[in-house]
Amino acid sequence: MATMQALTFHGARDVRVEEVPRPEITESGDVLLRVDRAAICGTDLHPYSGRMELEDGFVLGHEYLGTIEAKGGGVTEFEEGERVVGSFFVACGKCWFCRRGMPMKCMAIRVFGMGFAMGDLPGAQAQYLLVPQADLTLRKIPENGGLGDEDVLFVGDILTTGYDAVRKTDMRPGDVVAVIGCGPVGLCTVMAARALGAGIVVAVDMVPERLKLAESLGATAVNPQETDPTDVVLDLTDWRGADVVVDAVGNERALAACFPLVRMGGTISLPGMYVEDAAQMPIGDIWLKNITITAGVANIQGHMDEVLELIRDGRIDPKVIISHRLALSEAPKGYEMFEAKEALKVVLDPSG
Amino acid sequence: MATMQALTFHGARDVRVEEVPRPEITESGDVLLRVDRAAICGTDLHPYSGRMELEDGFVLGHEYLGTIEAKGGGVTEFEEGERVVGSFFVACGKCWFCRRGMPMKCMAIRVFGMGFAMGDLPGAQAQYLLVPQADLTLRKIPENGGLGDEDVLFVGDILTTGYDAVRKTDMRPGDVVAVIGCGPVGLCTVMAARALGAGIVVAVDMVPERLKLAESLGATAVNPQETDPTDVVLDLTDWRGADVVVDAVGNERALAACFPLVRMGGTISLPGMYVEDAAQMPIGDIWLKNITITAGVANIQGHMDEVLELIRDGRIDPKVIISHRLALSEAPKGYEMFEAKEALKVVLDPSG
Amino acid sequence: MATMQALTFHGARDVRVEEVPRPEITESGDVLLRVDRAAICGTDLHPYSGRMELEDGFVLGHEYLGTIEAKGGGVTEFEEGERVVGSFFVACGKCWFCRRGMPMKCMAIRVFGMGFAMGDLPGAQAQYLLVPQADLTLRKIPENGGLGDEDVLFVGDILTTGYDAVRKTDMRPGDVVAVIGCGPVGLCTVMAARALGAGIVVAVDMVPERLKLAESLGATAVNPQETDPTDVVLDLTDWRGADVVVDAVGNERALAACFPLVRMGGTISLPGMYVEDAAQMPIGDIWLKNITITAGVANIQGHMDEVLELIRDGRIDPKVIISHRLALSEAPKGYEMFEAKEALKVVLDPSG
Amino acid sequence: MATMQALTFHGARDVRVEEVPRPEITESGDVLLRVDRAAICGTDLHPYSGRMELEDGFVLGHEYLGTIEAKGGGVTEFEEGERVVGSFFVACGKCWFCRRGMPMKCMAIRVFGMGFAMGDLPGAQAQYLLVPQADLTLRKIPENGGLGDEDVLFVGDILTTGYDAVRKTDMRPGDVVAVIGCGPVGLCTVMAARALGAGIVVAVDMVPERLKLAESLGATAVNPQETDPTDVVLDLTDWRGADVVVDAVGNERALAACFPLVRMGGTISLPGMYVEDAAQMPIGDIWLKNITITAGVANIQGHMDEVLELIRDGRIDPKVIISHRLALSEAPKGYEMFEAKEALKVVLDPSG
Repeated sequence: MATMQALTFHGARDVRVEEVPRPEITESGDVLLRVDRAAICGTDLHPYSGRMELEDGFVLGHEYLGTIEAKGGGVTEFEEGERVVGSFFVACGKCWFCRRGMPMKCMAIRVFGMGFAMGDLPGAQAQYLLVPQADLTLRKIPENGGLGDEDVLFVGDILTTGYDAVRKTDMRPGDVVAVIGCGPVGLCTVMAARALGAGIVVAVDMVPERLKLAESLGATAVNPQETDPTDVVLDLTDWRGADVVVDAVGNERALAACFPLVRMGGTISLPGMYVEDAAQMPIGDIWLKNITITAGVANIQGHMDEVLELIRDGRIDPKVIISHRLALSEAPKGYEMFEAKEALKVVLDPSG
Repeated sequence: MATMQALTFHGARDVRVEEVPRPEITESGDVLLRVDRAAICGTDLHPYSGRMELEDGFVLGHEYLGTIEAKGGGVTEFEEGERVVGSFFVACGKCWFCRRGMPMKCMAIRVFGMGFAMGDLPGAQAQYLLVPQADLTLRKIPENGGLGDEDVLFVGDILTTGYDAVRKTDMRPGDVVAVIGCGPVGLCTVMAARALGAGIVVAVDMVPERLKLAESLGATAVNPQETDPTDVVLDLTDWRGADVVVDAVGNERALAACFPLVRMGGTISLPGMYVEDAAQMPIGDIWLKNITITAGVANIQGHMDEVLELIRDGRIDPKVIISHRLALSEAPKGYEMFEAKEALKVVLDPSG
Repeated sequence: MATMQALTFHGARDVRVEEVPRPEITESGDVLLRVDRAAICGTDLHPYSGRMELEDGFVLGHEYLGTIEAKGGGVTEFEEGERVVGSFFVACGKCWFCRRGMPMKCMAIRVFGMGFAMGDLPGAQAQYLLVPQADLTLRKIPENGGLGDEDVLFVGDILTTGYDAVRKTDMRPGDVVAVIGCGPVGLCTVMAARALGAGIVVAVDMVPERLKLAESLGATAVNPQETDPTDVVLDLTDWRGADVVVDAVGNERALAACFPLVRMGGTISLPGMYVEDAAQMPIGDIWLKNITITAGVANIQGHMDEVLELIRDGRIDPKVIISHRLALSEAPKGYEMFEAKEALKVVLDPSG
Repeated sequence: MATMQALTFHGARDVRVEEVPRPEITESGDVLLRVDRAAICGTDLHPYSGRMELEDGFVLGHEYLGTIEAKGGGVTEFEEGERVVGSFFVACGKCWFCRRGMPMKCMAIRVFGMGFAMGDLPGAQAQYLLVPQADLTLRKIPENGGLGDEDVLFVGDILTTGYDAVRKTDMRPGDVVAVIGCGPVGLCTVMAARALGAGIVVAVDMVPERLKLAESLGATAVNPQETDPTDVVLDLTDWRGADVVVDAVGNERALAACFPLVRMGGTISLPGMYVEDAAQMPIGDIWLKNITITAGVANIQGHMDEVLELIRDGRIDPKVIISHRLALSEAPKGYEMFEAKEALKVVLDPSG
């Protein structure tokens, strides 16, 4: 039986690179991918930090791209040897939710690297990845754009998450967007907002380097320890407020910060998972200001084609958020730094 | 100086029909309306019950129709003698929010019969009403539909409020809509949902007569004291939940009832003003289920044309909700019954 | 080898019911359907009347419903014994056009009963039908609506064609729709327009019985030999014209009739295939009136779920257009009557 | 009586700068504008070249910006001394079409500088311009963007015309847009398409300088005398064709060139007025390819706010199309050069 190197979970803050069985094609829609790059995503910290239980030895990771090593008989969209990037989840393409255009709510959804409860799909922080429903899950990396791995790596997760957070609002060209939090998703949201035609983008964070990065992406950067973001936004909008506010942090405090920023009739978009079950929300204001709130996991598969085009066209250059590039063997160190916020975004190379 | 009969506010539960000065045209865009019918609206209970302070002697009422008695020189859309129905608020048609299609958020918005703070516009529970910005505020009652006063009286407020609550969601034809509360707005929402192409409409209330009325309008009526609405909705939707849920009550308990009813990716629409400032909301579920929440006062002026057409065409017959018809002189009794929930909807006739 | 009865093509006006091999499942996504009902569609007249060449002995028919006799290993949405109705075409669900929500433009599209050039799929006017990509092509007939075969038979073709013709315009509730032609597609368009919330629907034809049928469906029926449809439409719309005009005939003369009917900023929708390659069109008027024209085969698979819900809910009752019910053995007579316009819609029963 | 300098029409190719009466405020919604810049627009060539008859002495011009000299009592959005840019037409804001969001189809529409038949509004190629319905017709030039006159001059006509041509299609981010013709409207369309998130924009023209300009704006420039635009477009789109094709020329030959370029399910947008009454159109292909065609004058007032934001934000820099800057006194020479295509875009300065 062929084996491979992979990053496996063994408990809180205990991840190891081990030799595990190499996956094999079992369904006609499967693709076996040779992973060229995999990233560590904020969601990976849920099991890593002990907030979520996984099976011992489960392979982690769900942000990836690679080369097609082999494919099942039913795969029609790809050939062996082609470079592809893929969604962090697998949808069936047939159920009521998929037919309604919501693959992220597929009744048979499976997520890579998230254990048995999420569909028992071994993860992508490994040399090989088995991709079910490959024709729906993967997208070809355009050949004629000279795109490198790092240009497209985040299309299957955080970049398209930031994109979806803005895309699903009723933002119009030239509108003002405020983004709370300049972590990886926040920065991707800034880039996506600009690519989608936003005018002024206000980015809020307390870490100077992240604010500098946001500024380099075209945002007006605000450190709330120095300036009140509400003052900035009101000043830039004739006292109306932002048309769209995105909470790219995902906790009750960040959520609370959205309400004073949004204008009457505006939208608050919540791409990030909330750890809290419940939160106090200003329902009086929500009503008085005609606010719309929209939340939940992104429609990755519905937007991958668009995002790839925007990257090819030079509208989005997401690789600027990468702070560390490590061999797969160094992945445990990558997790450590990422949890400690010493790394903004860690990319792993399983080829070495 | 000409006078007229009008219902005036003098404190909690103290409203009186008095002789007051008849209003006069002062701006070129004004219309002087001879009021043919006025209704008592749930919002009128805010001052009546003492939850909201108004100036002593202020004329109440904002749901009305009438005949044009006189008009200012700038009014182009109407002639004297024409029958019209009008929005409960007045918008300028020129500011940023009006240009963006949100007259209900107009920067100079004024509401009839709600006191100085809301624009100092005397109300419609009177023999005459002065209507500013008449070309934008009023709509002609179609002549060729044989429409009586009671067919169109609610177009300027509660009917279009219920309509807007559904219209602004992404409901598709055949979708399942659940409506919490079968008061006047709830029943109007049921009618509007059906006219907009909803499939099954589930209506929830605890008052048997209201449920009976909802049923006669095509809804599946559920009394939560007898049956769990969630069971009903899940059973009717292959365990998915309702595509759209409308809270037509407007308090924290009704709001809480919406979350288990709505399906993944569905929308909760909140047309009713909340008395509470803040409410505990299940942010974890909101995210996990990809819920959208949309709230606030309705875009009456943006939808009056559509609603009038649907009434003319027989798609909506809102007069079924009228429980009491009184002369204006009996208005104080109407308020009493309405507050006591002895009346579902009271219509006043100022002509008598 | 198992055989079955089927209607086969042998040249212009030469169709025969013959014993042919019963199809067999070959792909994992296939379903073998026992056909309960099949209809003769206007498109079937293209080969029948000699305007289109087909292979000798090819089985005709593409409007059908039936019971699942057997299924391939990859079919997940259906069980044996379930009643289903299906799209007249088969799409892959994976290509650029399918991903963009346009299965009717699938790069691998196949049409039942239209010969080798259209994908070599034997037709549905037979006792059995092999349905590829069954999970995408078929839909379950709701059990809890008491729906008979004739209620849903047209969901896979003409009913959803009429529905799509209106659905893809920017029609608003209460809008005025004019339909040129009251053949099967025209009558389905009338029903669909009403179910979608249209106000006045004006239906134009010269055959009195068809006009009577249109009237019974809620339309204002106009015979252009007696009254000018433009006069009727202008009179009903304050001289504006219809918001949406549908040419349900599909020839240059019908097309020309659309332009005077449509209002400024309105839409002309063309669901019917044109025999002509080119047509003279009033480009000056099209520009001056800001007209939008939208054409082409309907997005059947994108709308089948909605249409089934509307039927179950009693909003659409398409069986009223059926004029003749025949055994499959009588199909040649059905074609004769249909071509001669002696039959409005012929339904075949292959079970007898 | 006060007078001013203005360009007046006296017959084909006979325009003169003359002393004419200075306009005066007569309605409460009027603004008297001191014109700072006015442009010569392609539409001005209709009377100039003799294709359209105007009253002798009529003042021409409808693309303008200026400073508010005086205002009527009903004007609320502007103060004297403010810089504004305005729509080339005046709409009432009240009629059915205005309420439906189509001011360009206003039932009382008036166009500046186009003679009695178009509303008898003297034009903007003059020192002063009387602007009716000023609150709806004009927009403030944002102060905080450092915007010069030439940055915003075209917002009231050709820039927003190009913008609207793309904005009203269903273009998605990253889509491919082809623009036929690189005159002023074509180049504005290229800029607008990019600002709206288009991916590849293919611009077609035969004049090398115009192609060079298109290229500098981010387009792939194609000279059909050297390369077949269809080959270019198909090659760039995996043989699909362009998602959107804009005919920015407005004659039958340019229109014919659109059809082979557009993909199945794509849109052809026709912003330019057609001189021809009728044109041969490939109705067979229109149907087979599911093409949508949308035509007519642009919704200037509906998009001016957005376009101004995009300019302020640096997304659109339209002044690159200006080839000549002349004093108002030199306007006759400007017309000559513009008609002879020696000038791409002529801007007049009435202040000198």
